[in-house]
Amino acid sequence: MTGPCFISFFLLLNLLPFLQTLEASHCSIKGLPLVRNIADLPQDNYGRGGLSHITVAGSLLHGLKEVEVWLQTFAPGSRTPIHRHSCEEVFVVLKGSGTLYLASSSNKYPGKPEEHFIFSNSTFHIPVNDVHQVWNTNEHEDLQMLVIISRPPIKVFIYEDWLMPHTAAKLKFPYYWDEQCFQVPQKDEL
Amino acid sequence: MTGPCFISFFLLLNLLPFLQTLEASHCSIKGLPLVRNIADLPQDNYGRGGLSHITVAGSLLHGLKEVEVWLQTFAPGSRTPIHRHSCEEVFVVLKGSGTLYLASSSNKYPGKPEEHFIFSNSTFHIPVNDVHQVWNTNEHEDLQMLVIISRPPIKVFIYEDWLMPHTAAKLKFPYYWDEQCFQVPQKDEL
Repeated sequence: MTGPCFISFFLLLNLLPFLQTLEASHCSIKGLPLVRNIADLPQDNYGRGGLSHITVAGSLLHGLKEVEVWLQTFAPGSRTPIHRHSCEEVFVVLKGSGTLYLASSSNKYPGKPEEHFIFSNSTFHIPVNDVHQVWNTNEHEDLQMLVIISRPPIKVFIYEDWLMPHTAAKLKFPYYWDEQCFQVPQKDEL
Repeated sequence: MTGPCFISFFLLLNLLPFLQTLEASHCSIKGLPLVRNIADLPQDNYGRGGLSHITVAGSLLHGLKEVEVWLQTFAPGSRTPIHRHSCEEVFVVLKGSGTLYLASSSNKYPGKPEEHFIFSNSTFHIPVNDVHQVWNTNEHEDLQMLVIISRPPIKVFIYEDWLMPHTAAKLKFPYYWDEQCFQVPQKDEL
C-alpha cells in the first residue's frame, strides 16, 4: 500500500461515522423545523433527464402516514413513465402546460389512451389504478406541478408501452426518490 | 292571493325541478371535465369574513376517498378557528405570510400554543389531533395556501380558546364547505 493511499484509507475510516450521521439525518424527521422553506429541501432528478423532484411532505422523510406531497418540474419534452398505482393522486398545475395520457385498467392492457390538455392553474386526479403518463408537450416552458398521493410510500407499476398487459407491468418499489431512505421493515424476533 | 303573487307561485313550482337539478349537478361528479380550471371552481367564504375557500379536489364534490385539496385565501387579520382533527394535514404557502399556533393534545387542554412564522413557499404539517390555528398576521397581504387533508370529508373539533378542555371542543360535521353536498348515509332496509 502506498503512503497517500494508506492515509486516504484511514481518513475514510475516520469520516465514515460522520457520513453515516449525515445520511441518517437526511432520512430522519428529528431536528427538522416544523415550517420548512421548500427552496431548501433536497431536489434531484433521480437519474431521469429533465425532471426536478422535491418531496415537500413525505412518508419516509417527514413521517407522514396517509398523504405525501411532491413538487415536480418537467423540462420541455420530458415525461413520467407510463404507469399505474393503487392510490389516489391529485395534480395541481402551477406553471406551464402539457398532456395527460390516460387509459383505464378494465381491459387486459391499457390500449390507446385518452389525451387531455393540462395547463397552468388546472387540476385533475387519476382514478385509482388507471394507467397514465404526464408529458410536457410544450416546447417552450417548464411544466411545474404539485402532486398529492395517498397511501405513501408509492408503489408504481411501469409499462413499456400502451399495449403491455397489466400483468406484465413491472413493480418499482421503493420508487426512485424513496430508495435512499427506505428501510425494509424489521421482522419481530420471537 | 293577488294576481302577481299567484303567477310567481306557479313560476316557482315550474322552476323547482330545474333548481333541484342545478343543485344536484353541483354535488355530482357526473359531467365534470377531468381537467378543471381552478379559476372556474365554486368559491365562497361560507359565512367567515376574510376567507375564500375552493375545494380543488374533494370527497363530496369529486368522488375522492383518501385525500382532499383546498385552495384557501385569508385576508389580513382573518384566521381559522382554534381546532383539531384526527387526519393528517399538509400546508403549502403560495402567497403572503402569517402565524401558525400549535398546541399538543397530550394535556387536558391545549394551553399556550407554540408560535411559528409561516411564509411564501414554506410548507408544514399538523400532527394528527394537535390543536392549531392559522392566522394571517400580515396586515398588508393576503395569505394563500394549498391545504391537503387525508380521510375526507373533514371532521373538525372547535375550541373557543386555548384553555378549553379537549373534551369540551365542539364537533362541526359536516364542515362549512361540505354542508351543501353532504348526505346522511342511508341505512340499508332489511
